[in-house]
Amino acid sequence: MLRIHFDDMIKEFTRVLIKAGFTNDRAELCAKIFAETSRDGVYTHGINRFARFVQTIRKGNIDVNAVPEKVASFGALERWDGHLGPGNLNAYVCMQRAVDIAKEHGIGCVALRNTNHWMRPGAYGILAADNNCIGICWSNTVPIMPPWGGNENKLGNNPIVFAVPRQGGHIILDMALSLYSYGKMETYARQNEPLPFDAGWDSQGNITRDAQAILDAKRPFPIGYWKGSGFALVLDLITMILSGGKSTYEIGLLEKETCISQTFIAINYQNLPDNNLVLKSINDVLDDMHSASLQKGSNGIFYPGERMMHTRKENMEKGIPVEDIFWKQVLDL
Amino acid sequence: MLRIHFDDMIKEFTRVLIKAGFTNDRAELCAKIFAETSRDGVYTHGINRFARFVQTIRKGNIDVNAVPEKVASFGALERWDGHLGPGNLNAYVCMQRAVDIAKEHGIGCVALRNTNHWMRPGAYGILAADNNCIGICWSNTVPIMPPWGGNENKLGNNPIVFAVPRQGGHIILDMALSLYSYGKMETYARQNEPLPFDAGWDSQGNITRDAQAILDAKRPFPIGYWKGSGFALVLDLITMILSGGKSTYEIGLLEKETCISQTFIAINYQNLPDNNLVLKSINDVLDDMHSASLQKGSNGIFYPGERMMHTRKENMEKGIPVEDIFWKQVLDL
Repeated sequence: MLRIHFDDMIKEFTRVLIKAGFTNDRAELCAKIFAETSRDGVYTHGINRFARFVQTIRKGNIDVNAVPEKVASFGALERWDGHLGPGNLNAYVCMQRAVDIAKEHGIGCVALRNTNHWMRPGAYGILAADNNCIGICWSNTVPIMPPWGGNENKLGNNPIVFAVPRQGGHIILDMALSLYSYGKMETYARQNEPLPFDAGWDSQGNITRDAQAILDAKRPFPIGYWKGSGFALVLDLITMILSGGKSTYEIGLLEKETCISQTFIAINYQNLPDNNLVLKSINDVLDDMHSASLQKGSNGIFYPGERMMHTRKENMEKGIPVEDIFWKQVLDL
Repeated sequence: MLRIHFDDMIKEFTRVLIKAGFTNDRAELCAKIFAETSRDGVYTHGINRFARFVQTIRKGNIDVNAVPEKVASFGALERWDGHLGPGNLNAYVCMQRAVDIAKEHGIGCVALRNTNHWMRPGAYGILAADNNCIGICWSNTVPIMPPWGGNENKLGNNPIVFAVPRQGGHIILDMALSLYSYGKMETYARQNEPLPFDAGWDSQGNITRDAQAILDAKRPFPIGYWKGSGFALVLDLITMILSGGKSTYEIGLLEKETCISQTFIAINYQNLPDNNLVLKSINDVLDDMHSASLQKGSNGIFYPGERMMHTRKENMEKGIPVEDIFWKQVLDL
């Protein structure tokens, strides 16, 4: 395992992206988003995914020079078209735009159609929080979950993010609506370990913790069973309606996952009274939560994003851990 | 089991509420919300709860004449104070206000503090959808769930609603963040039936489907385990920040559940282009979902709110089913 300095990772990613056709500015921002993702410990959507991202560009599935465009608006609600540009850059622009609207109107909503995979969802929640806004955003995906009661994949696992800005560390909930991600299930399958909780059905329709059986059957549980199934559906419908883009159903008709639809909401409460009390109120809630006695076998109680901050600090000090093979892939690009 | 006509139920509720001190208009609206809840099959938060609601008023815990008041605003974001009035009337006013803001700004957000239990959460999503808006709203509650990794109740089950308007039947997701509600677990416990899925911990910290054991230990699972735990926390923080009201932690310090905080968001997409295509796009998604082959033992695939519409139709035709004892309670009030 290598340890690569954050700045060196950005530099290397930038080099590769410029070679792939990005302008300098956009290469740097895209590189930064990828490097920050690894810095924060989300390796699957950072460096480990970078070579695959570049391959997707080479295949012509991402237009590196496409910039998102506002195609309609009404007050604090805007519709943008991503023109199949890089998903992380499109998402970044749209959350930044939602923040700018929120600075003017208190709340801003930008719906984006025709975009590509945004990589780490939490990145755009952090962007809102770094701008002192509450951030809420979600994406639809290809169909990869069965609706409750059904056998066939009709729903996306539609990741959703809720971000609360906080001095000392934002609260960042970044969750897909399947109990375990496909990536997590693949890890358990490789290690031949059972998943910690019932996580889906096998091909015979039996509930199981066997990751490989769930992967084979393609039937992961939604979080909260019927609740997550309904949740995935409404997020897909809302983002389709607002963006005027494709639903999970329509994305599933394509040959590959593209033309994704996303929604970005920012809320700026800085102009409401008593903002000086907010930090204390948040910390009171977190302190109370942390004070609970521990469940047996528990390794602690954490707010969403808490462990990320430890990882970030460690990785900034020691360098970001990278498997040799992934770093070699990048150097060879 | 009696069958009471919808209009008769409203009349009877109105009579009782006027007697309890409501003005005529407010009594009628409050009665209508309660009756609609039973009409749609949510009996626990409709007629079955009505007598208890009136008791709460008599105890002085609800100020029947308090009206919600706007205390701060910035653009499309407003903060209201419920002054401890009836929770359903406060919530109704605030979602209606969010809709009005959305008609002007595309999106509207109203955060409400110092309110009381809103009864059926879905009612306010339906209100937004009836006004052709997407509706999102949630409430915090007393602490009734342990945070992930902990033993003590620090989180609310913070119900959240997502509503998508649709001619022919809105899509209404109305879910608390515990896998099963306390009411549902009490029903299973009374019938001495195991819950269908692992649903919480017993007092020894073992995972169980035994509803009584979970009720005794007060340790229900959040939906998606650690995910629902984080979700409940962020919803509480956001609603506390925006409303300037109490968090679940602070509500837990009171003698009873009051001074609740809620958030209401409405999105009006009617001024965006191509709205004539929305209904077909929604129906395509629902048709595709309904077309999935059924899981063994499944009684069908339903979108959130689908079965509610069947119940509503039946109850409007045949009258609303009411256990004799609950109707007698109302008549005696």
